[in-house]
Amino acid sequence: MEILVVGSVAFDTIETPFGRGQEVLGGSATYFSTSASFFATVRLVAVVGEDFPDEHRHFLAARNVDLAGLQVAPGRTFRWSGRYGFDLNEAQTLDTQLNVFEGFQPQLPEGFRDSEIVFLANIDPELQLEVLRQVRRPRLVACDTMNFWIAGKRQALVETLRHVDILLINEGETRQLANEPNLVRAARAILALGPQTLVIKRGEYGALVISAHSIFSIPAYPLEEVFDPTGAGDTFAGGFIGYLAATGNITDAAVRKAAVFGSVMASFTVENFSLDRLRSVSWPEIEGRFRKFQALTAFEGLD
Amino acid sequence: MEILVVGSVAFDTIETPFGRGQEVLGGSATYFSTSASFFATVRLVAVVGEDFPDEHRHFLAARNVDLAGLQVAPGRTFRWSGRYGFDLNEAQTLDTQLNVFEGFQPQLPEGFRDSEIVFLANIDPELQLEVLRQVRRPRLVACDTMNFWIAGKRQALVETLRHVDILLINEGETRQLANEPNLVRAARAILALGPQTLVIKRGEYGALVISAHSIFSIPAYPLEEVFDPTGAGDTFAGGFIGYLAATGNITDAAVRKAAVFGSVMASFTVENFSLDRLRSVSWPEIEGRFRKFQALTAFEGLD
Repeated sequence: MEILVVGSVAFDTIETPFGRGQEVLGGSATYFSTSASFFATVRLVAVVGEDFPDEHRHFLAARNVDLAGLQVAPGRTFRWSGRYGFDLNEAQTLDTQLNVFEGFQPQLPEGFRDSEIVFLANIDPELQLEVLRQVRRPRLVACDTMNFWIAGKRQALVETLRHVDILLINEGETRQLANEPNLVRAARAILALGPQTLVIKRGEYGALVISAHSIFSIPAYPLEEVFDPTGAGDTFAGGFIGYLAATGNITDAAVRKAAVFGSVMASFTVENFSLDRLRSVSWPEIEGRFRKFQALTAFEGLD
Repeated sequence: MEILVVGSVAFDTIETPFGRGQEVLGGSATYFSTSASFFATVRLVAVVGEDFPDEHRHFLAARNVDLAGLQVAPGRTFRWSGRYGFDLNEAQTLDTQLNVFEGFQPQLPEGFRDSEIVFLANIDPELQLEVLRQVRRPRLVACDTMNFWIAGKRQALVETLRHVDILLINEGETRQLANEPNLVRAARAILALGPQTLVIKRGEYGALVISAHSIFSIPAYPLEEVFDPTGAGDTFAGGFIGYLAATGNITDAAVRKAAVFGSVMASFTVENFSLDRLRSVSWPEIEGRFRKFQALTAFEGLD
């Protein structure tokens, strides 16, 4: 099944203690698409400026990402600049230039309207709703959001969640959205808003997948070299939704395995700047790391 | 095999958003002993003041904890007072009164010197070394420590670690001891100091068990009601070392299962103040929660 993704395509300037990336390819839809493309065909809806080079277009197209929904608007592409300290847990935003992203109105090409799987990356929940109005009959809708929308557009976000099957959200935002400090109770409160499944992203601590009758915990892979955590969450989402699209079902077993694939893909992304590690990673490497996650978490049962 | 534990017995006064415990039974050796007593016989070495009531002695003795090494010194028992916020991750210490603990000199009763398994709870590393000099031929030595000793008595701590098989330590202290921000590389640096196994405690995120050829990750149990995290680390250590003492081997498989039992025991402790939940928990409940950890972490392999 094809996956429709709507989100940002951006140029990132990133400083970490290990180096600097200057105007490298970034954005939620870019990380998601590249990661998901290992599992399924992706249809991308986003906006770039007139400065967006063909080289990036060619990279995405070569990965089976359908760019028919990539608008080019007069002006410059969205730019984000951030810095990470040694703990690499949270970026300090140095500069945000929305540029053409400011006026983004997602328009689905006619051929995208039959998409069965939809991922609404972290954009204004009003735009997320607008995208859903343009999709005919999606089988699975997943979405991401952030503190900015929870605080500033709660009403629209709650309306969006009524149409969402899987919400991916980080730990602090889970507590913020539910207004509840206990994470499990916060998750239950959010499930009552619509989603059947909540994926709580915990950065270097991995993720929790919570539904009405199941909680699954997957660690992040303990890496000796983490260069740049930018895009880890969207890469996780790409592996997660990509695997579900490839298998075509969302049983509890499939969702768990999808979360492992999400963690596998995210563990590669952080090994280098931008999408550089995803550009080079091979399927045997992905399977090899999946097996390392098995070794990382396995223990014997009671006698 | 009997476990020798040396550490503190204390009265804790604890404030959390969910209530207050006034001069309740606490201390590293107390939590450890109670937790380990579900798996093996424990020999406790600690000091209390003349104000320590028989009721607490009877509780420990009834749990098969040998109190022959519990000294009574003139003065008052060690008191600690702390407060937790809503996130329950870190205590703010309000008051510490070392009292009789200040002059503590561990003296092993003759009958304790043949102990095969030793747990050195978080005390001055010079005292930890002194305890090891009094034990004849331990088969397994585990120890805990904290930022205070890493900063103030690094030399003595490093000397202690030369005699330690398993070091239990929290995440920030791992980085501090190794002077290395990457956790995996920090762990490798500490393994080079002596221990064969490092258990990195991550609070609500669980624990990592790292040895030369294996990394095991176990989450904390996602609880809907966490009342008081005091003692969770020592309770983990009690379940962990207790299980190893009960099985008598320290293969990788045993160490992994021990870490699960440690997490199981810790998950009960935090459900109520002081040792109240450990007082009531039954073996079937412990096995039941072990199975819940299996359900929490299980996923299918590749086809």
